[in-house]
Amino acid sequence: MMAAVEPSVIDPTLRDQLDIVIPTIRNLDFLEMWRPFFENYHLIIVQDGDPTKVIKVPEGFDYELYNRNDINRILGPKASCISFKDSACRCFGFMVSKKKYIYTIDDDCFVAKDPSGNDINALEQHIKNLLSPSTPFFYNTLYDPYREGADFVRGYPFSMREGAPTAVSHGLWLNIPDYDAPTQLVKPSERNKRYVDAVMTIPKGSLFPMCGMNLGFNKDLIGPAMYFGLMGDGQPIGRYDDMWAGWCVKVICDHLGLGVKTGLPYIWHSKASNPFVNLKKEYKGIFWQEEIIPFFQQVVLPKEALTVEQCYLELSKQVKEKLSTIDPYFTKLSEAMVTWIEAWGELNAPDKAGADMGPSKVGKKLAAASA
Amino acid sequence: MMAAVEPSVIDPTLRDQLDIVIPTIRNLDFLEMWRPFFENYHLIIVQDGDPTKVIKVPEGFDYELYNRNDINRILGPKASCISFKDSACRCFGFMVSKKKYIYTIDDDCFVAKDPSGNDINALEQHIKNLLSPSTPFFYNTLYDPYREGADFVRGYPFSMREGAPTAVSHGLWLNIPDYDAPTQLVKPSERNKRYVDAVMTIPKGSLFPMCGMNLGFNKDLIGPAMYFGLMGDGQPIGRYDDMWAGWCVKVICDHLGLGVKTGLPYIWHSKASNPFVNLKKEYKGIFWQEEIIPFFQQVVLPKEALTVEQCYLELSKQVKEKLSTIDPYFTKLSEAMVTWIEAWGELNAPDKAGADMGPSKVGKKLAAASA
Repeated sequence: MMAAVEPSVIDPTLRDQLDIVIPTIRNLDFLEMWRPFFENYHLIIVQDGDPTKVIKVPEGFDYELYNRNDINRILGPKASCISFKDSACRCFGFMVSKKKYIYTIDDDCFVAKDPSGNDINALEQHIKNLLSPSTPFFYNTLYDPYREGADFVRGYPFSMREGAPTAVSHGLWLNIPDYDAPTQLVKPSERNKRYVDAVMTIPKGSLFPMCGMNLGFNKDLIGPAMYFGLMGDGQPIGRYDDMWAGWCVKVICDHLGLGVKTGLPYIWHSKASNPFVNLKKEYKGIFWQEEIIPFFQQVVLPKEALTVEQCYLELSKQVKEKLSTIDPYFTKLSEAMVTWIEAWGELNAPDKAGADMGPSKVGKKLAAASA
Repeated sequence: MMAAVEPSVIDPTLRDQLDIVIPTIRNLDFLEMWRPFFENYHLIIVQDGDPTKVIKVPEGFDYELYNRNDINRILGPKASCISFKDSACRCFGFMVSKKKYIYTIDDDCFVAKDPSGNDINALEQHIKNLLSPSTPFFYNTLYDPYREGADFVRGYPFSMREGAPTAVSHGLWLNIPDYDAPTQLVKPSERNKRYVDAVMTIPKGSLFPMCGMNLGFNKDLIGPAMYFGLMGDGQPIGRYDDMWAGWCVKVICDHLGLGVKTGLPYIWHSKASNPFVNLKKEYKGIFWQEEIIPFFQQVVLPKEALTVEQCYLELSKQVKEKLSTIDPYFTKLSEAMVTWIEAWGELNAPDKAGADMGPSKVGKKLAAASA
């Protein structure tokens, strides 16, 4: 494993401080299109499904790959908190990364073009979002005040102009929008063609549907809350992994005074998933969320909860207490939240050497660096 | 006065249901550029400053004009709540309008162009914003879900997809941004060139700096809260008229479950006001707002306050109680808020004939209609 690098001057590309996490079940040909933007970064590939399948990674990428056997070996009994046969498994990659920043992207996402026809460097925009403050406490009508050519408008309190540290950068999607199964069924041919040239801070107190397709975050600030829950194999629900993480992340960011941004960058989302399959996965979520969201809108975390871990454990208690009445699944989920934090603590302890943490497969650049 | 028209089918242009309110001290040559968009609407011109000055209105517009003498005659002693020598006087126009919708615009605002080079029909966009719901209770990452080509994304609760009635449509400005004096001084040549193709709902619980330059609202839903305060002549503060209205409006909309939108449409703001003059007007506001905004962020309106008037009177009490410690001005302001509601009630009583409410001057279309 590469050690985290803390340069005295921040490299604005974050080349040594950011990992790209990709959950997948197939060969990663999509990386060819991303080569100019990703080739200098380290990839963490989380292989879902059959661990004996060989995933091909295009040559020249610096990566480590973990399959289910690796996850079981590294986490032991705590591997139960990592979903199987669902892209929720990506959060294992967040856990094993040793970097300060994470960017995660789905393998059906390609490079989008801006209105001038130029390729969008999504990662560069996420880094800009993460390295500049957010404005969760008051709305700026000209959007991101830290962007070139913009500022705070008249009436924006000066004491709030330093903003808040940015924990999350949520990017969007051109082409196939991230719709639920009912909307997919009703509007099978709707495509997102609107490029909105803005980055917004989601105000304090407001929840949002966080999508994991194109997502950056600061692991030091919010990592332990980026748990994608229990989904897929053996679970009554799927396609709510990123939503769950987003609700938890947002209430904790609000409590700790951290910022969450959404908007730019866009990626090109190529494939609509099957709406019938999706409906089966998500139908329980569609009615559960009617109770889950009011729960998250009303959650109050105690003042004593000062770290993300403390907040998350408190949240797990309240989930057990208040959501278990919906379905026994939430008891299991609340316990998995605790297991996740325990596993996180083990892998992210400051002195962790990680003897048995090696991935199954590493790409050549990493191998060379480790030699 | 024209009577309010309530057609059985809503005309999507709202031609008979919307008034355009313009505060001014000069000839309204700027209307020439707006002729294609405004000529079918009724204008209410509020003449500020010297009432003996003659304001020229380009031919063919249907208007009524009120100067200070009219305001004093119509409101009697209650005219004290209407500011003099400040664009805050515009709210008198809101009060005398008999229409359901108001659009107000400054006379240094011109027609902007969209990125394709087409003239933007700002009024048409405001009407679209006002006639479609808002989404204050949960953030939709693809922005306005009611717009063609967009919808609610995965994870957006179905029970919230009807949204909330829209009370306010806050439009933006290309060219000269709406900066405070310190920012104008520091960045004298900054221009807003970014066209962001989006309309946002400002989430419940989040305040924003409302600018009166390019603003639409539903008078039936929020009118009595659109009071622009005591500014200008004889007052210790200026340039906070729209901010004050915006804070009051937003907390009342949040309390009553109404929506506030910001974003499109853009107008072209032509002239930067003098930053030195502005600094003199606004410097007290710059530090007062550091206490006013936390006050508005914490305001709780009682459940019993069910109408805008009730909410506004309650707010006036809390202003007196909690802001008078900043400066005696706030005692005066809280009293003016009560006077405003009383005057509003008189002019907007259902059976109000308005015998002595005639304006000084009317344009020929109105004169013809009244004849």
